[in-house]
Amino acid sequence: MATSASGTPELVARAHEGDPRALARLVSLIEDGSPRVRSVMKELAPLAARARVIGLTGAPGAGKSTVTSALVTAYRAQGLRVGVLAIDPTSPFTGGALLGDRIRMQDHATDRDVFIRSMASRGHLGGLAAATPQVIRALDAARFDVILIETVGVGQVEVEIASMADSVAVLVVPGMGDAIQAAKAGILEIADVFVVNKADRPQAQETIRDLRNMIAMAERAPEDWKPPIVTTIATSGDGIDELVGKLDAHWSWLDSSGERDRRRVARAREEVAALALGALRRKMSRLPGDSALGPLADRVVGGQIDPYSAADELLGALTNGA
Amino acid sequence: MATSASGTPELVARAHEGDPRALARLVSLIEDGSPRVRSVMKELAPLAARARVIGLTGAPGAGKSTVTSALVTAYRAQGLRVGVLAIDPTSPFTGGALLGDRIRMQDHATDRDVFIRSMASRGHLGGLAAATPQVIRALDAARFDVILIETVGVGQVEVEIASMADSVAVLVVPGMGDAIQAAKAGILEIADVFVVNKADRPQAQETIRDLRNMIAMAERAPEDWKPPIVTTIATSGDGIDELVGKLDAHWSWLDSSGERDRRRVARAREEVAALALGALRRKMSRLPGDSALGPLADRVVGGQIDPYSAADELLGALTNGA
Repeated sequence: MATSASGTPELVARAHEGDPRALARLVSLIEDGSPRVRSVMKELAPLAARARVIGLTGAPGAGKSTVTSALVTAYRAQGLRVGVLAIDPTSPFTGGALLGDRIRMQDHATDRDVFIRSMASRGHLGGLAAATPQVIRALDAARFDVILIETVGVGQVEVEIASMADSVAVLVVPGMGDAIQAAKAGILEIADVFVVNKADRPQAQETIRDLRNMIAMAERAPEDWKPPIVTTIATSGDGIDELVGKLDAHWSWLDSSGERDRRRVARAREEVAALALGALRRKMSRLPGDSALGPLADRVVGGQIDPYSAADELLGALTNGA
Repeated sequence: MATSASGTPELVARAHEGDPRALARLVSLIEDGSPRVRSVMKELAPLAARARVIGLTGAPGAGKSTVTSALVTAYRAQGLRVGVLAIDPTSPFTGGALLGDRIRMQDHATDRDVFIRSMASRGHLGGLAAATPQVIRALDAARFDVILIETVGVGQVEVEIASMADSVAVLVVPGMGDAIQAAKAGILEIADVFVVNKADRPQAQETIRDLRNMIAMAERAPEDWKPPIVTTIATSGDGIDELVGKLDAHWSWLDSSGERDRRRVARAREEVAALALGALRRKMSRLPGDSALGPLADRVVGGQIDPYSAADELLGALTNGA
């Protein structure tokens, strides 16, 4: 490949013009935490084209990648360019799922207007969550109209990552009673659309009723979005058009309510704060004398100071520019 | 209860004297993030009695709580006081496991020298990981000799929490090939002892061989600890004595090598850093003018600045005491 001679501005320009290899290279730089990421981000900032970002999450086996693949087909039929980011932040204990999922996505492998990328955790907590908004920004600058973020599991990191989307679809499978429990406890707040997939299963009506009750019970102002329930059989394509319609309706609501900008600003807040805190974390260890993190930790272990008072001393040293 | 009149110093003193209700109240204060936690920590600091902390982690179904219960019995037979902290940082999708596990622990429910506490995630990422060292400190001050930390799953948060222990036992079940994959990728570094539980299953020998190869391949200096493999059938108690022996051997090695203090200092570093960063995070939003987090996030969304440069501006304002 002739990319070795490419500087960052050239690489970003080529990705912006639609070169999939340049985009793949950018995503790799971000994923690897390359020192070039800073300059990549600087070049990407003015190119924000404001792609629509859709998150898909749900329990393993809910059919997320089949729904994702069906959505890709539907958006391609509208002439839209689609980026797919499949994220597995779970431990490698469940890592096997990813390969199988990717095989189902091969329908789109030869379509130049579809870009598919898997990102798996490499063991360091928070790394994936930090890289995701940067990769979204790269796909956005590469002028994809729709970016689908599919997470493999339903843990806290997945919920955090799904929350980076403009619209979040939560997939539930009939008969998975615990999915309903989960939705009650933590997923309801992030779901903009509920998808009851494999809706030909016997318990589908029960699941829909449970979801409906849950949605009805949630506190919500009249102007707030009320998550609709869509039933699909993604393997046959049943219900995908309705899902696309509900996602369109949510996109329109995001626009008219001003919620889209609020969500995007909230996301940027988290991102900037995380970067700043990361830099401060590195600075903590380099402070001189007793106020550096190491000596304070020694005193905590020795019982001479409690951790809160130690944190206060550390902050004093940090913010005095010591 | 007559605890309503208790000030923090009295509550801590009573927990230190062995009152289980006072300890339970302290743990609740910590878990709820009460404003009193600061003063609780101040009172607890000088009472550090240096309990031995043992972590147990492994895939769901590996038999963690059965092994935990067997270890409680074994340590009680030595006359040691045992605290158990069962932690479920996973999403509520798997929350059902906890109740069943607790039922198995009821053997010890009437023993005053055993304190058992479950902590489940309430949806906010990092909350449990932050509370765990504080709860360990409370149990330590209450003069438990051994504190067992059992995590329900094997995600990144579980690994993080297990790493708070002096010794970490990783449970693997024969035939779970993906567990070996996981061990290769991320668990090997934190395992001090491998436990092949349900060792009467057909594939036990294969699993042991895989683990042995893995351990042999890991880079390790001659003076480093080499994780032994113990086979157990926890339901019948088989192998538990050997497990206790290996954990004792690891405890002796921690002592003679100086590794115990290094680990405890490293843990305290993380704890103090997390508290300081949390305080800075709150301060970020209260900075005046354009350098506060909100206005910077607006500019990131507008493409006028990239997130790294925004983080630099934020840091400048923070560390100048603005």
